[in-house]
Amino acid sequence: MSSKPLKDLVVLDMTRVLAGPYTGMILADMGADVLKIEAPGKGDDARAFGPFVNGESTYYMSLNRDKRSMTLNLKAPEGKEILKALVKKADVLLENFRGGTMEKLGLGYDVLKEINPRLVYSSCTGFGMTGPYKHDPAYDVIVQGMGGIMSITGQENGEPTRVGASIGDITAGLFSAIGVMIALYNRDRTEKGQLVDVSMLDGQVAILENAIARYLNTGIVPKPIGNRHPSITPFESFKTSDGYVIIAIGNDTLWQKFCKLVDRPDLGADPRFTTNPLRTDNQKALKEELEKIFVNKSTDEWLHIIKDAGIPVGPINTVDRVMKDPSVIAHDMIVTTHHPVAGEVKMAGVPIKLSDTPGSVDGPAPTLGQHTREILKQFLSYDDSKIDELYKDHVL
Amino acid sequence: MSSKPLKDLVVLDMTRVLAGPYTGMILADMGADVLKIEAPGKGDDARAFGPFVNGESTYYMSLNRDKRSMTLNLKAPEGKEILKALVKKADVLLENFRGGTMEKLGLGYDVLKEINPRLVYSSCTGFGMTGPYKHDPAYDVIVQGMGGIMSITGQENGEPTRVGASIGDITAGLFSAIGVMIALYNRDRTEKGQLVDVSMLDGQVAILENAIARYLNTGIVPKPIGNRHPSITPFESFKTSDGYVIIAIGNDTLWQKFCKLVDRPDLGADPRFTTNPLRTDNQKALKEELEKIFVNKSTDEWLHIIKDAGIPVGPINTVDRVMKDPSVIAHDMIVTTHHPVAGEVKMAGVPIKLSDTPGSVDGPAPTLGQHTREILKQFLSYDDSKIDELYKDHVL
Repeated sequence: MSSKPLKDLVVLDMTRVLAGPYTGMILADMGADVLKIEAPGKGDDARAFGPFVNGESTYYMSLNRDKRSMTLNLKAPEGKEILKALVKKADVLLENFRGGTMEKLGLGYDVLKEINPRLVYSSCTGFGMTGPYKHDPAYDVIVQGMGGIMSITGQENGEPTRVGASIGDITAGLFSAIGVMIALYNRDRTEKGQLVDVSMLDGQVAILENAIARYLNTGIVPKPIGNRHPSITPFESFKTSDGYVIIAIGNDTLWQKFCKLVDRPDLGADPRFTTNPLRTDNQKALKEELEKIFVNKSTDEWLHIIKDAGIPVGPINTVDRVMKDPSVIAHDMIVTTHHPVAGEVKMAGVPIKLSDTPGSVDGPAPTLGQHTREILKQFLSYDDSKIDELYKDHVL
Repeated sequence: MSSKPLKDLVVLDMTRVLAGPYTGMILADMGADVLKIEAPGKGDDARAFGPFVNGESTYYMSLNRDKRSMTLNLKAPEGKEILKALVKKADVLLENFRGGTMEKLGLGYDVLKEINPRLVYSSCTGFGMTGPYKHDPAYDVIVQGMGGIMSITGQENGEPTRVGASIGDITAGLFSAIGVMIALYNRDRTEKGQLVDVSMLDGQVAILENAIARYLNTGIVPKPIGNRHPSITPFESFKTSDGYVIIAIGNDTLWQKFCKLVDRPDLGADPRFTTNPLRTDNQKALKEELEKIFVNKSTDEWLHIIKDAGIPVGPINTVDRVMKDPSVIAHDMIVTTHHPVAGEVKMAGVPIKLSDTPGSVDGPAPTLGQHTREILKQFLSYDDSKIDELYKDHVL
């Protein structure tokens, strides 16, 4: 029997694509019984996103590992009744439809909380359940644009740049997971569930970090500054003969150590570079000097030399290198699932390491509707003939 | 009395700078009594990070709002004893020292769990408590580089680019918050706390999203592709007369609608652009055409025109514009605290909206050691003369 921390939790996962499924994935990794409710015939939109292995979407498979899939037609009256019957047995419901969709289906939080007052209902949308954009569709790139992070990402004097991972979706999925767990903690004390309403745009504002403080206190609108630190130098990336290294020299002692290490006492003595404020003021001149040094050796050579000297350093890993990193491997951060159709599928592992009741990736993503019959039997005690009829009537 | 969901929770927050304090901030917003334990004289390193208002760090103030501050010298034997006495009364301990520091102080998890088996101990480090880098220092930019996100962020054919917010730190802080809440949920069932070990590097791998799947299935190492979508076109940003807009045209019907809207039926009929796969294959040619269109009007004009037509669209907001966004304002995502020294300080609000027991930002960050005396009286029943002596002995 599982000793995972959320093993007694039943989650109805009605989410699609990325943000909502990410929340469900975390709960599933930690042992929750996550029942993915999908539209008959089609399922989660992400099932159509490539790349595919034997026709199965790797995008879908990594976000929905170890969930069970059940098809349900939410437009059919009997489909709505089945959902309500499942809500009675569930602890958590996750949905990330466009704002207003669940209400239009007659399945809004106000309806479902009457059926199960202990239900924790998580809505994850572009712009939240209230406010002027509550019915607008959202895509990661639009939310990244609206939320400010693109305006501070990019090369110096360059274009605003999208973060290469879908940080608008994923951040919202993480805030939703926190909200769901807090609502469950509270339910253990009050016996009452509640609504957890997370907006992707709000999530982006929440991670702007000190850009808001900087703007308000200086009046200067923050812009992209490339890979360097605004007030510590050198604290940035440099081209090597075959890639990049990043060095983080936070004080003058490390700076002198570095100059000695690369056999450039002239730089250590240069009056433009003796203190951190001077190095920051003369960052461009210093960068030109350092570029000439770093381009002479490979990334791995520099990592070796600089790390041995006790100076913080790291590579810019491409994805193939990330997967070979010894710490990433030691922490089981790349895991393999065995999918009935796609075979071996690798994906990112569980970054939250619990000492007593650890999470893990125990099973593959489901094929569409793989568990419809077993879920209806287990939770609603339906028999095969009733289920056959529901299939015939296109309810499942 | 507060009706916040974590109001009965006592958190010892020994964290510094960003990742750990972010976890404590979320718990404080949700009502936990977060006791920030800081080194006498100096405190959290972030107290020295600008910009400053009346000498107080805005960086520190936004991450430590509504916490209480107590000074404690952890190198003094009496300081260690006081910490252990507080651990007896605490539910959660948060720390983000470099790996091995707490053990060296004689305050590692193995020691503290003997004192309080119910303690949830959260360690948030660069590389986790196990593995080959466990003692290495980490900075956000180094972890972003190692974790792969920089290698997929940037303009097409351009340099790998750091995400402009400290996503390495913040993601780890979010995973830690999820881990702490899961451990507390589990404690309600087992009466036992546990260790929550989060590595910043692992957090970066966990948000690489489908880049891992894409690499493994195609063998092609993912690179920066600017602001566009890899397989949907046009789904990217364009320069306007005064800024940028992002459009997200996900299907051929929207494409035809758009061509009509901008009075360019020739583009709608152009055989290079009639279907999404064709538009993606000819993305560069299409971009050139669209650039000529978008540069003729302002961002606000385009937003108005395109949104009215039901096509997903958004601006690239700079931070000043984010703060004026009507949805951001409607959701209280910019809040004001009143600090005893700095006065009015604005910061990002709470993105997790709970319907029954909402969180909120109720108080300013503490000055260094502002609550030392009241905490020692409240939790350990020390009297003033004992506390005076501890001050004299530099324990506080």
